Amino acid sequence: MAIGKGRLEAFSDGVIAIIITIMVLELKVPHGKDLESLRPLTPVFLSYVLSFAYVGVYWNNHHHTLQAVRSVNGSILWANLHLLFWMSLIPFITDWLGESHFSRWPVFCYGIILAMNGIAYRILALALIKHHGEDSLVAKAFGNDFKGKISIALYPVAIALTFVNATFSMVIYVIVAAMWLIPDKRFERLLVDGEEEE
Amino acid sequence: MAIGKGRLEAFSDGVIAIIITIMVLELKVPHGKDLESLRPLTPVFLSYVLSFAYVGVYWNNHHHTLQAVRSVNGSILWANLHLLFWMSLIPFITDWLGESHFSRWPVFCYGIILAMNGIAYRILALALIKHHGEDSLVAKAFGNDFKGKISIALYPVAIALTFVNATFSMVIYVIVAAMWLIPDKRFERLLVDGEEEE
Amino acid sequence: MAIGKGRLEAFSDGVIAIIITIMVLELKVPHGKDLESLRPLTPVFLSYVLSFAYVGVYWNNHHHTLQAVRSVNGSILWANLHLLFWMSLIPFITDWLGESHFSRWPVFCYGIILAMNGIAYRILALALIKHHGEDSLVAKAFGNDFKGKISIALYPVAIALTFVNATFSMVIYVIVAAMWLIPDKRFERLLVDGEEEE
Amino acid sequence: MAIGKGRLEAFSDGVIAIIITIMVLELKVPHGKDLESLRPLTPVFLSYVLSFAYVGVYWNNHHHTLQAVRSVNGSILWANLHLLFWMSLIPFITDWLGESHFSRWPVFCYGIILAMNGIAYRILALALIKHHGEDSLVAKAFGNDFKGKISIALYPVAIALTFVNATFSMVIYVIVAAMWLIPDKRFERLLVDGEEEE
Repeated sequence: MAIGKGRLEAFSDGVIAIIITIMVLELKVPHGKDLESLRPLTPVFLSYVLSFAYVGVYWNNHHHTLQAVRSVNGSILWANLHLLFWMSLIPFITDWLGESHFSRWPVFCYGIILAMNGIAYRILALALIKHHGEDSLVAKAFGNDFKGKISIALYPVAIALTFVNATFSMVIYVIVAAMWLIPDKRFERLLVDGEEEE
Repeated sequence: MAIGKGRLEAFSDGVIAIIITIMVLELKVPHGKDLESLRPLTPVFLSYVLSFAYVGVYWNNHHHTLQAVRSVNGSILWANLHLLFWMSLIPFITDWLGESHFSRWPVFCYGIILAMNGIAYRILALALIKHHGEDSLVAKAFGNDFKGKISIALYPVAIALTFVNATFSMVIYVIVAAMWLIPDKRFERLLVDGEEEE
Repeated sequence: MAIGKGRLEAFSDGVIAIIITIMVLELKVPHGKDLESLRPLTPVFLSYVLSFAYVGVYWNNHHHTLQAVRSVNGSILWANLHLLFWMSLIPFITDWLGESHFSRWPVFCYGIILAMNGIAYRILALALIKHHGEDSLVAKAFGNDFKGKISIALYPVAIALTFVNATFSMVIYVIVAAMWLIPDKRFERLLVDGEEEE
Repeated sequence: MAIGKGRLEAFSDGVIAIIITIMVLELKVPHGKDLESLRPLTPVFLSYVLSFAYVGVYWNNHHHTLQAVRSVNGSILWANLHLLFWMSLIPFITDWLGESHFSRWPVFCYGIILAMNGIAYRILALALIKHHGEDSLVAKAFGNDFKGKISIALYPVAIALTFVNATFSMVIYVIVAAMWLIPDKRFERLLVDGEEEE
């Protein structure tokens, strides 16, 4: 079953690189020539920044997780493609979010897509743990996946809050992203420990 | 003739990553702000899901096949580019499929493109087998290429059925994709066996 | 001066993969639902096929040339970026070629861009030969660069012929592409010889 | 802390390859068929050339810097994503620059984006130096980062000059790009020295 992880990483890097970059295509050049003409772009720009952070976080986590991976199998390849599918919808939903000036339903759908990404990442984690065993480095690293659990718990709250006030939901999305941007020493520490043990 | 397979994989990963991602650009953001405004996107979204699955299957198979490959030659490079050419037409035909709400001729052409991809993959397989020999790991793996043979047999049926009812054809396309999504232990087993033999 | 060639290859693969794939975005989905509505796409499709072949040839040659390369330096990095610049104009000129139904000036400009690509490739070759020495594998491989010389000689002829009849020019472009598509054993042989010598 | 630098390079290569290539999508095919119809594209083309050079310079520097890097950590990954964020805005601002025929505010914003890229690169450098130590190869290479310092000093001048005459600013942007295009033996020399020392 020793299929190398190299191409899984290369393909994921390619898809994520494209996802994070094509979002910027939604920043349509204004027809005017003064600063004023940039103002209508503000919501599109802000939603771009938020989604850039989310996709960056996913790439970062993917990078760290795969560091602890020794080999892959068919289920892992599909779990990874499943994750990439939900990530590929982020540019679409980001665009709607910005174009609609953060109205209720786009904010609602943004939360759904983020939640599906969180779930898809969890499924990938389970496939990796099943393949490497409960005592593996990967399993230990996900054992206390504090941030992952909080995120998956916060998304439904944010989604429900769109029926009260979509701004509250946006605040939660920003908080979740910020939480992930704070450096996470977990994997680095585990990798060092794991290498020392070997 | 010992040309490394590294760049063939890297280039194919790049092209396939772009193909699978640009399809999502066809999901145009709705002008409305409510859920209702997403409804017209349904056929485009469904055709995106189907083609994402097909491109994912091709990447997966490409990944598995290349695992068993030791080196490449000029014919293999061209056979691979030929496959990428037909894959590059998938976003176009997918878009037409969705935009036309799965009408006869787009469904017909979708089948043609899928069939050409199947044939191109077969040509790549033959080039790989010729280069590695009839006793090679690659040759054995393709020897009983059950799914590949069924797929190439089903495409003409689906194409012909467009003249009866295009829905039947779409059902066949979904069945073929689903057949490939079911985990395939063939290559993994062979690789393990092959490594044990060596 | 021993800078690895790995990232030069990876970056070039990325750019060339994008160039070859975004050309297909010019195949705009027809509004109609029947085969007839595909007909206006014919010239755009034909120019896509031709340019796909050219970009494929360049990737193939790039792949083969870099196989014989041991390391790179600053001049090589810039010569490579210069080549990628001219390649990046191929999607634009291809689109104009198709949209204009192969009229004189687009055919003229297509030839100019192809010629600039040929010259840029030659400059890259000179930078590689200068870095590796006149007795290197790379130098030998380019020593009798028959196809390269013929191509650079044919482009001016094709460009001049646009003032007589643009169809003649198109025929020459097709002939040059076809010439390159015929398998070239030169590099493969040289690599094998080179490895045997060492 | 020994996280490999491989995927950082691969992902950056992917994003930079896309950034440098999607800029060409702004060269919209003219409706006319004669050379005259290309003339309105001149400012868009010139701004494309300039930005291609800047992105090429960044890729080149990134390549050289990472050569001297042994491993990465979380801060470096984020500093790198932060750089990619500012780079991702280059296609947008380039387009505005060309569309507006180099008017004051687009020229002003172009300078801001270039300056933010320069600062982001500096932050990445600091993260790399902190991780590798003040005596490392990376630290030495950046110690006398003459070009980097001049660039960061010239951007504010160019930005301020937009209030006098935007042409002066454009001249400075061209000078800065040209300065970087002149081959820089610094890193190559250091790498050779560093390898000799070891």
